[in-house]
Amino acid sequence: MSAFYSIKDPIRYEGPNARGELAFRWYNPDQVVMGKKMRDHMRFAIAYWHTLCWPGGDPFGGDTFMRQWHHMGDEMAAARMKADLMFETLRLLDVDFFCFHDLDIAPEGKSLKEFNANVTEIAKIFEKKMAASGKKLLWGTANMFSNRRFMAGAATNPDPDVFAYCAAQVKHCMDVTKDLDGANYVMWGGREGYETLLNTKIGHELEQAKRFLSMVVEYKHKIGFKGPILIEPKPQEPTKHQYDYDVATVYATIASLGLQNDVKVNIEQNHAILAGHTFEHEIALAAALGIFGSIDINRGDYQSGWDTDQFAMNIPEMSLAFLEILKAGGFTTGGLNFDAKIRRQSIDPDDILHAHAASMDACARGLLIAATVLEDGKLGKIVDERYAKWNESKNKAMLEGKETLESIARRALAEGLDPQPKSGRQERLEALLNSYI
Amino acid sequence: MSAFYSIKDPIRYEGPNARGELAFRWYNPDQVVMGKKMRDHMRFAIAYWHTLCWPGGDPFGGDTFMRQWHHMGDEMAAARMKADLMFETLRLLDVDFFCFHDLDIAPEGKSLKEFNANVTEIAKIFEKKMAASGKKLLWGTANMFSNRRFMAGAATNPDPDVFAYCAAQVKHCMDVTKDLDGANYVMWGGREGYETLLNTKIGHELEQAKRFLSMVVEYKHKIGFKGPILIEPKPQEPTKHQYDYDVATVYATIASLGLQNDVKVNIEQNHAILAGHTFEHEIALAAALGIFGSIDINRGDYQSGWDTDQFAMNIPEMSLAFLEILKAGGFTTGGLNFDAKIRRQSIDPDDILHAHAASMDACARGLLIAATVLEDGKLGKIVDERYAKWNESKNKAMLEGKETLESIARRALAEGLDPQPKSGRQERLEALLNSYI
Amino acid sequence: MSAFYSIKDPIRYEGPNARGELAFRWYNPDQVVMGKKMRDHMRFAIAYWHTLCWPGGDPFGGDTFMRQWHHMGDEMAAARMKADLMFETLRLLDVDFFCFHDLDIAPEGKSLKEFNANVTEIAKIFEKKMAASGKKLLWGTANMFSNRRFMAGAATNPDPDVFAYCAAQVKHCMDVTKDLDGANYVMWGGREGYETLLNTKIGHELEQAKRFLSMVVEYKHKIGFKGPILIEPKPQEPTKHQYDYDVATVYATIASLGLQNDVKVNIEQNHAILAGHTFEHEIALAAALGIFGSIDINRGDYQSGWDTDQFAMNIPEMSLAFLEILKAGGFTTGGLNFDAKIRRQSIDPDDILHAHAASMDACARGLLIAATVLEDGKLGKIVDERYAKWNESKNKAMLEGKETLESIARRALAEGLDPQPKSGRQERLEALLNSYI
Amino acid sequence: MSAFYSIKDPIRYEGPNARGELAFRWYNPDQVVMGKKMRDHMRFAIAYWHTLCWPGGDPFGGDTFMRQWHHMGDEMAAARMKADLMFETLRLLDVDFFCFHDLDIAPEGKSLKEFNANVTEIAKIFEKKMAASGKKLLWGTANMFSNRRFMAGAATNPDPDVFAYCAAQVKHCMDVTKDLDGANYVMWGGREGYETLLNTKIGHELEQAKRFLSMVVEYKHKIGFKGPILIEPKPQEPTKHQYDYDVATVYATIASLGLQNDVKVNIEQNHAILAGHTFEHEIALAAALGIFGSIDINRGDYQSGWDTDQFAMNIPEMSLAFLEILKAGGFTTGGLNFDAKIRRQSIDPDDILHAHAASMDACARGLLIAATVLEDGKLGKIVDERYAKWNESKNKAMLEGKETLESIARRALAEGLDPQPKSGRQERLEALLNSYI
Repeated sequence: MSAFYSIKDPIRYEGPNARGELAFRWYNPDQVVMGKKMRDHMRFAIAYWHTLCWPGGDPFGGDTFMRQWHHMGDEMAAARMKADLMFETLRLLDVDFFCFHDLDIAPEGKSLKEFNANVTEIAKIFEKKMAASGKKLLWGTANMFSNRRFMAGAATNPDPDVFAYCAAQVKHCMDVTKDLDGANYVMWGGREGYETLLNTKIGHELEQAKRFLSMVVEYKHKIGFKGPILIEPKPQEPTKHQYDYDVATVYATIASLGLQNDVKVNIEQNHAILAGHTFEHEIALAAALGIFGSIDINRGDYQSGWDTDQFAMNIPEMSLAFLEILKAGGFTTGGLNFDAKIRRQSIDPDDILHAHAASMDACARGLLIAATVLEDGKLGKIVDERYAKWNESKNKAMLEGKETLESIARRALAEGLDPQPKSGRQERLEALLNSYI
Repeated sequence: MSAFYSIKDPIRYEGPNARGELAFRWYNPDQVVMGKKMRDHMRFAIAYWHTLCWPGGDPFGGDTFMRQWHHMGDEMAAARMKADLMFETLRLLDVDFFCFHDLDIAPEGKSLKEFNANVTEIAKIFEKKMAASGKKLLWGTANMFSNRRFMAGAATNPDPDVFAYCAAQVKHCMDVTKDLDGANYVMWGGREGYETLLNTKIGHELEQAKRFLSMVVEYKHKIGFKGPILIEPKPQEPTKHQYDYDVATVYATIASLGLQNDVKVNIEQNHAILAGHTFEHEIALAAALGIFGSIDINRGDYQSGWDTDQFAMNIPEMSLAFLEILKAGGFTTGGLNFDAKIRRQSIDPDDILHAHAASMDACARGLLIAATVLEDGKLGKIVDERYAKWNESKNKAMLEGKETLESIARRALAEGLDPQPKSGRQERLEALLNSYI
Repeated sequence: MSAFYSIKDPIRYEGPNARGELAFRWYNPDQVVMGKKMRDHMRFAIAYWHTLCWPGGDPFGGDTFMRQWHHMGDEMAAARMKADLMFETLRLLDVDFFCFHDLDIAPEGKSLKEFNANVTEIAKIFEKKMAASGKKLLWGTANMFSNRRFMAGAATNPDPDVFAYCAAQVKHCMDVTKDLDGANYVMWGGREGYETLLNTKIGHELEQAKRFLSMVVEYKHKIGFKGPILIEPKPQEPTKHQYDYDVATVYATIASLGLQNDVKVNIEQNHAILAGHTFEHEIALAAALGIFGSIDINRGDYQSGWDTDQFAMNIPEMSLAFLEILKAGGFTTGGLNFDAKIRRQSIDPDDILHAHAASMDACARGLLIAATVLEDGKLGKIVDERYAKWNESKNKAMLEGKETLESIARRALAEGLDPQPKSGRQERLEALLNSYI
Repeated sequence: MSAFYSIKDPIRYEGPNARGELAFRWYNPDQVVMGKKMRDHMRFAIAYWHTLCWPGGDPFGGDTFMRQWHHMGDEMAAARMKADLMFETLRLLDVDFFCFHDLDIAPEGKSLKEFNANVTEIAKIFEKKMAASGKKLLWGTANMFSNRRFMAGAATNPDPDVFAYCAAQVKHCMDVTKDLDGANYVMWGGREGYETLLNTKIGHELEQAKRFLSMVVEYKHKIGFKGPILIEPKPQEPTKHQYDYDVATVYATIASLGLQNDVKVNIEQNHAILAGHTFEHEIALAAALGIFGSIDINRGDYQSGWDTDQFAMNIPEMSLAFLEILKAGGFTTGGLNFDAKIRRQSIDPDDILHAHAASMDACARGLLIAATVLEDGKLGKIVDERYAKWNESKNKAMLEGKETLESIARRALAEGLDPQPKSGRQERLEALLNSYI
């Protein structure tokens, strides 16, 4: 497969003035930023599905890519070819991680048993390649939305046999993820939702979802899987309503089960904006709630109402995101998985490399800008000052539960409190941020 | 003020073929539906702010209504005139409840002390009028978003003095609401959110909000206020992001504080759709989570991105909403508060009556259709059948925590489970629903 | 194929209290409404693509319907089976018209020549079936968006060979449409737009589009095709921006070419709302501009940002649409084409019948309500009065170009004009409309 | 008023590493870019309304700014104070132009006659200040949306007296604009649209709008006003639907009147995105249609559905906009008017300076990046190559009307055309653009 791409040697950092197109201008893997190598800040991962499985179709047209492996009779041979190409892509892009759904890596076969066997067979190939190359698995997940059996939901299906089927599929996928030393296990409930309330018992389905999540956590402990379970929020699409709408909604589920230590979120930019939130909001909120896990890095079109999954290229947006990531302490098990697809018109194999490399550069610039903001400290100081009065003991007391509505009211009236507003200085802060770009 | 409107006698039910314009065609207050009078199903309330306070302005133009009380020098005299008019409006529309913000009913004066005194004075007028007329208070609330002191938030303000001020204002408003035997106390956090993350400590502000809510619940118990505290979700506007985004988000707050028994939600149609949800979704979700409280009945424009607060007129939409309300058991302390304003071009006083009466009719039709759907039972039966397999003991066991991922997986593989999809029958159900309209 | 559906006899009108599910409750084809049979008001058409070609896939999952003809080796045999089924569906639903893209009815083969031959062969089958059944073709169109050759546009492709290819394809499709006595010829520019301005010469592509449209009109005259060319507006999807954004945009093209007599619009509800307009707005605007042609009747989800193409079921919405259709004089060559697909979970063949029949009923109710509004005349009278002063001669003169800015200004100042606003009465009009439902 | 701001000397260019906050980092007025001074590329203008008239209110709260001139009894004295402050602001920001609505600069008084006199009086003050300072008027316009007389429209009002009143108001405002040597005259139809089709004759109102525009153009010629009439598109808000929806819609009006030489568009970023378009799209389309005039530079929130009118700060977005502006040949009479308001929490007077200066810098960076892209030529070359085949004579012939559908079809079939798609290279182009940032 080395002939798939036009280059043979990995892309390297050549600085902002690099002359060639396939070079990193900003992403310098071994450069130390705030005490950590960029490589370890980013923990980039390549996604199997977009890179190797999607043929370029959309609801109005079919395959544009015409990849060899989509047109082979022998599905396991195609699966092996894809495995080769994944590791070649990791090598050329100098990316350390990859991610997959079970269905991405192996054919379904005629039964779950056969599917499991196929997945295991490819996973064994991964094991060897990982050992040889040092590449790692950021996370695995089970595809429980493509096959028609899941059309009305997976764990939230009205048919309990589908629930049982999912249990079996997830168990196997967790086993495989553990065998491959995956850093996390992800759940995206693509069809966990509904099309119409007319045929739906929303309370019943939420109970199903909760029980399923609990079992997954129990099993994680049983097999000694160390990484967190990550839930990936999305508001809708393919369903009209998806139960894991956004970070706040997922937190409600996690908190009501008391699973904050085991379950975190995998935040995607495009999903965030479809839910009406900025990307940085979802990161900041997850961090504040203690459930920040990992990121599916991509970019949605603010004016298209579906998941466009474009490559993240917007430098100011990346700066804001990294500001929140760094403030949250950076990644532990998580990383930046490219849940992004080249446009269906980008039919040259090299477009895959261009897209990833350019987005890695955009992320790198976001990191560098955010680090400068934090190291410079001006912004942080302004914000600290804005909240400074909360450090006074009488005010701390209010937050710490030492005062009541009545006692505070008494003081407010006695002191004749008449608080005067202070400028929020938004434009000055935006200007300050721009001065770092 | 009797000259404000063109009619002197209350609007009455005259049936679908009523000849006059100001008549109820469907809302028949004493008609029994599913064992309860329509009046008690609906618990309609008139909102002070839209009906009496808003002068018809929008961001691009000012006062169109030219109401007498907006142009009087003596603010307390204007407040008394508004009180008269509220009870006259309740009488003419045969509506049993009203709702207010403290600032709607009385002028702010020069200090909180003076404001509180003004509010109390008008409340005493209410007391007499309520005794005389039998009208009741559905809920009270404190306006903590209009004055510039709240521009950066109320309980979530970076300035703890504002937090203290809010405590004093809410305490007084709760006292007044209790004195007036209000059925609920509402909190809408219009500015509890942020404009830009650049100047915001989201975690700190969330802690402030939680502590404030806890104090409110503690005080409710202290004074023996029986009704629930209702939080009204809204995703944004006026702020860029509002912390009480939607029902799921509010549930996360309530559940993390363990306050499900004391705090419920007040759901508004326009807020629901701004958050990307259908109205019936928010009701169904609140019911499933056990926090369904009350409703702000109105209608947003699906294609305008702000709170248009129009009068609810859409019969199919009302039918879907009442289907969920009735399935949730109907209202206990809650009701249907008209958080709706006549268009700024509807400058005739009678437009207020036309709008309310027509929307009461639309709600009545929604109730009647929903009741027929439930009494007929066809829809319910189809949905029950869809989930029927969950009643089998092996399936119940999965939900009740008697099985593990492993045990289920073992059975799924042993039985060679291969669940086949069944039609969701959405169009047939939509047709069935239409057959009741 | 008679076994495909569960019924053998056509669905009939049985009135609002029909007991069976597969009956018309409101659509009574031969009932006369405002002097015309309902059948002739509606001119319903069944769409080939959604009904027979779409397998139930979406971007996250594949075929759910498992239709026999999608899994046959012989594509022409499958095409014949589909043709049989189309006419069986028309018969069972008592629908008079059908619509197709060339690619819906026949396989592409290996060359345009072969494709054309295939299309012609199936068209000949249609001819016989049409003669035998009396069924008619509402319109034909060429699919120039599914094949990868069109990925960067059809007539607006940067590659002139694609432009030429399109000319050949459209010519053949127009020939076939004329041979089948189609009432209109439609152009929907699914990929006539762009993904990114970075690689696009917008001016050049607009010129291409204009020249192509001109050639189509010239060819229409040459072959004596009597029906109009209909352009179907859509704002985006699949492309980021589509040139035929909405009715106003299409009018700009038509007007700048002076083709108002030959080119009209085919308006789709879902496309209208994706462009930020109500359905009735697009109809009213097209009528006002003299380019109202035909309708693709369906329903979008106001909260999902893509073309959901659901069956139109909303009675108030249909009433507003028919109000504008009737005010525009009703259809001449146009009709109501069901550009609607059953949900991908609606996998029973009968779901096709349920969906169409229920939507036909919803349309019928819209027609009946709108007719009552017009015949009753109250609404019309109120609106006429609102504009009545324009009938005065001094005011007519202003509109007719007999006055200038200066002459009017002189009069306004001389008369000290100080116009006072009058109530727009929106809620009263909404109430009036509801009284007819 | 010199005490209003904290600085006395104009802000100056100090380069990217400027130490003070109030300095230009990128905007260097006299620096030559592509043969023209930055000052002349930009033609910045300060808007009267946001800067001096808006008190900081929003639909949920009132005045936050507490400016002295909003709380004075003598309205003409306040108007003179504002005039002083406008020129002081222009001086401190080194901005050459300003823009106003008649109502921004002078009080309405009790009649149109008095209003006109007030406007004239302030205009005379402007004249002196302009002569003394060299500052210029980019454009004037009439506010025909704030007063309640315009609540149902200005030129499209159902009441012809309002039409006449508008004629008189616009005439005077055009006279004043001409007297002040304004470079353009603008029309923004804030209420030229409708709230509900139920009370609206859309065709009639469109005729009114067209006649009014024609009269304005006639009057422009009569008085010898040299600049173009600029229409500013906006899709909705305050109305449900605004007739000047977007550039394409305005072009339809202009083209149907044949006024392309006299009427151009004034494009606003926030209005563009509310209409579902990117800012750069609207610029590129206007340029392609020959009606590009001027720009209201600001920034909307992609996730808030109303006109937020924030200061433009996004560097990549400004780069894309300037790429289209430069490709269109830059401004002639137009310029960059700051139709942007500081946030209502930005209550310090200096926030006005910070906001403008930072946005001027962001625009400057956009210009510099765009200029580099064009001078470098790589991007242009790639795009030219994409369309290169259209330069071949046989292909040119197709565009130039020398071929027919039939003749092209014949060739396509004869040559067996089978065009193969080429990569659109979107990610490579995005990467290329990022390399200039």
